[in-house]
Amino acid sequence: MTTEYEYSPGLAGVPAARSSVCYLDGQVGKLQYRGYPIEILAENCSFEEVAHLLVVGHLPTAKELASFSAKLAAQRALPESVLGTLRSLPASGHPMGALAIGVLALGMSEKSAPQSASKSTADRREIATRLIAVLPTIVAAADRLRRGLEPVAPRADLNHATNLVYMVSGAVPDAIIGEVLDAALVLHAEHQMNASTFAARVVGSTLADAFATIAGAIGALSGPLHGGANEDVLEMLESMNVDAAEGIRAWAEDRLAKKEKISGFGHREYKVKDPRAGILQTLGVKLFEELGATPLYGRATELEAQMARLVGSKGVYPNVDFYSGIVYQKMGLATDLFTPVFAIARVAGWLAHWLEQLEDNRIFRPNQIWTGEADRPFVAIDQRG
Amino acid sequence: MTTEYEYSPGLAGVPAARSSVCYLDGQVGKLQYRGYPIEILAENCSFEEVAHLLVVGHLPTAKELASFSAKLAAQRALPESVLGTLRSLPASGHPMGALAIGVLALGMSEKSAPQSASKSTADRREIATRLIAVLPTIVAAADRLRRGLEPVAPRADLNHATNLVYMVSGAVPDAIIGEVLDAALVLHAEHQMNASTFAARVVGSTLADAFATIAGAIGALSGPLHGGANEDVLEMLESMNVDAAEGIRAWAEDRLAKKEKISGFGHREYKVKDPRAGILQTLGVKLFEELGATPLYGRATELEAQMARLVGSKGVYPNVDFYSGIVYQKMGLATDLFTPVFAIARVAGWLAHWLEQLEDNRIFRPNQIWTGEADRPFVAIDQRG
Repeated sequence: MTTEYEYSPGLAGVPAARSSVCYLDGQVGKLQYRGYPIEILAENCSFEEVAHLLVVGHLPTAKELASFSAKLAAQRALPESVLGTLRSLPASGHPMGALAIGVLALGMSEKSAPQSASKSTADRREIATRLIAVLPTIVAAADRLRRGLEPVAPRADLNHATNLVYMVSGAVPDAIIGEVLDAALVLHAEHQMNASTFAARVVGSTLADAFATIAGAIGALSGPLHGGANEDVLEMLESMNVDAAEGIRAWAEDRLAKKEKISGFGHREYKVKDPRAGILQTLGVKLFEELGATPLYGRATELEAQMARLVGSKGVYPNVDFYSGIVYQKMGLATDLFTPVFAIARVAGWLAHWLEQLEDNRIFRPNQIWTGEADRPFVAIDQRG
Repeated sequence: MTTEYEYSPGLAGVPAARSSVCYLDGQVGKLQYRGYPIEILAENCSFEEVAHLLVVGHLPTAKELASFSAKLAAQRALPESVLGTLRSLPASGHPMGALAIGVLALGMSEKSAPQSASKSTADRREIATRLIAVLPTIVAAADRLRRGLEPVAPRADLNHATNLVYMVSGAVPDAIIGEVLDAALVLHAEHQMNASTFAARVVGSTLADAFATIAGAIGALSGPLHGGANEDVLEMLESMNVDAAEGIRAWAEDRLAKKEKISGFGHREYKVKDPRAGILQTLGVKLFEELGATPLYGRATELEAQMARLVGSKGVYPNVDFYSGIVYQKMGLATDLFTPVFAIARVAGWLAHWLEQLEDNRIFRPNQIWTGEADRPFVAIDQRG
């Protein structure tokens, strides 16, 4: 039971795969999908384009993008049976549960599912495209059903981001909302070997189908240490109850003194400012200028300014979660939809890793450090005490 | 992006946790739950007793066992809303999908779910007990519904194994069936850091609730490289189409010559005979003697004899999957229920690992070996080709 490998809790630093999906260097704030800097992708590419980059492996030509976008748009609808399953769910549960259930129910209804891991790369990409296309429809339908509203059928003439807001609200949103959400989806589409992506690789390595694999990743993303963080930021800002600069400064100093967590600041991977935070902040400025600021947005910008003064020199900067919640709220999304929207973006990355995993698969089966006693003498039940 | 840790595909040999749940030494065929040899547990303990050992950490006294068994029996029923979700599922899908959906739907309906990871150890054990209790009910209800039958309500006066067969068939089975299934559940309850258990740890490490965690493990177990193996054995035996010793020998020689897989032989972890296989084989003999042999059972024993002659010296022995399928079939369980039955047993082990993970948690976030190109120049879409 000895091992030649050193133990690292959480497998921090331990390579779990060979990968060309995402280059990440948190020391210098570098995030690159397939080697392209996130800043350039967010400025130049739609979510559809980035999903193609991740899942197919290269930036599409105009013709490839048109074909890929059309395929996504054509595959948004859910079968009646899956809508029936979503109708059966209790309105009180978290929508991340509904999302995982919807994905699994779709897997049960699509004949391709059981063999999805054993198909060719091209076939697997088709299943990946279907999953990227359909996640917004599941999230929006589940959200409307819990509000006592009928689901809104997807519209093929809207892009991925705009159609998502349309299916949630029932109305086509202002152009700026579609624009900012599109960029937010790009920013969240991939982030190397994080826990949900790793969960997708572990589940997928058993040759479980794509639906079980993505449901597993959704489960991991639902955890408060992972996808739930942007909900926390909003709750924290709401509970602050101060708006003036001095009040916010005092609030931050008090938290820091008590060594309490300030949600949305710092990131395990980044020693400098999360490059995604700056992009989302700029987009947020545009959104709030056009549609009007919210008190929380004012609090957030003031808190960032105060934190920069207090701990910026220690490398504690806002992360992408700090701005995404405020922006999503302004778009009219319920707080508990933030993580499902994260999943709608990240599914592209999960599927890129799933496809890569299956090209050179070995089932995950790590070892352990045994801390118990072995060869224990068995005691009959009437003699235990 | 350099790492001090060596890359091992599938993390083979790499410790992923400190654990006292299961001691496994495949070199000598040693499998011990909490340090007690599996042979002794299978002979002396019920599944309920072993579930207590795994989840609570020690072998129960008679009083503790009575209380734990009563709690399991009392918590078998499903809420109407979860039955409604199961009713909505297509009859054609695999029951592992229905099982994961049932678990997630239960999580949405139970108020304790969202905070299940942040509760005390005692509270988490209560949730674990609820999950162990309810998995057979989900599997049986989903199986009956797809056959056009109404679910059968659980009976609190039957033990875990007998009640499972009762809920599937609607009739209390022969005592020998309950006895053999009880032992089969004990044999499958835990197996160290296999892919589904590891998936549970990865999902659970994000502080996702117990329902999302177990659904993730179910997804991993659904993969053909993992839980699906006992279905393969049955399909192989059925497709052999020979029963005489010479025919079976020729069949085996042909497969070995072509280097084709013979399902149910060999195991990644064991260099000697899987200790569970021998126990299940002995129980199988008893079952078939009492209730009558099946042709497949005759084929299986003959195939084992021939394989022992042909490759036994190379350390290729039958594994636990080789016998479990034949035994489950004799009990009247459909082939695609074998993996769900595996899950019904293994959920005790998954939950033991989940509880242990949360006692000393760090979110799983491994590294990667970067194989792509970084800092790639971005090309505008109209210039790609």
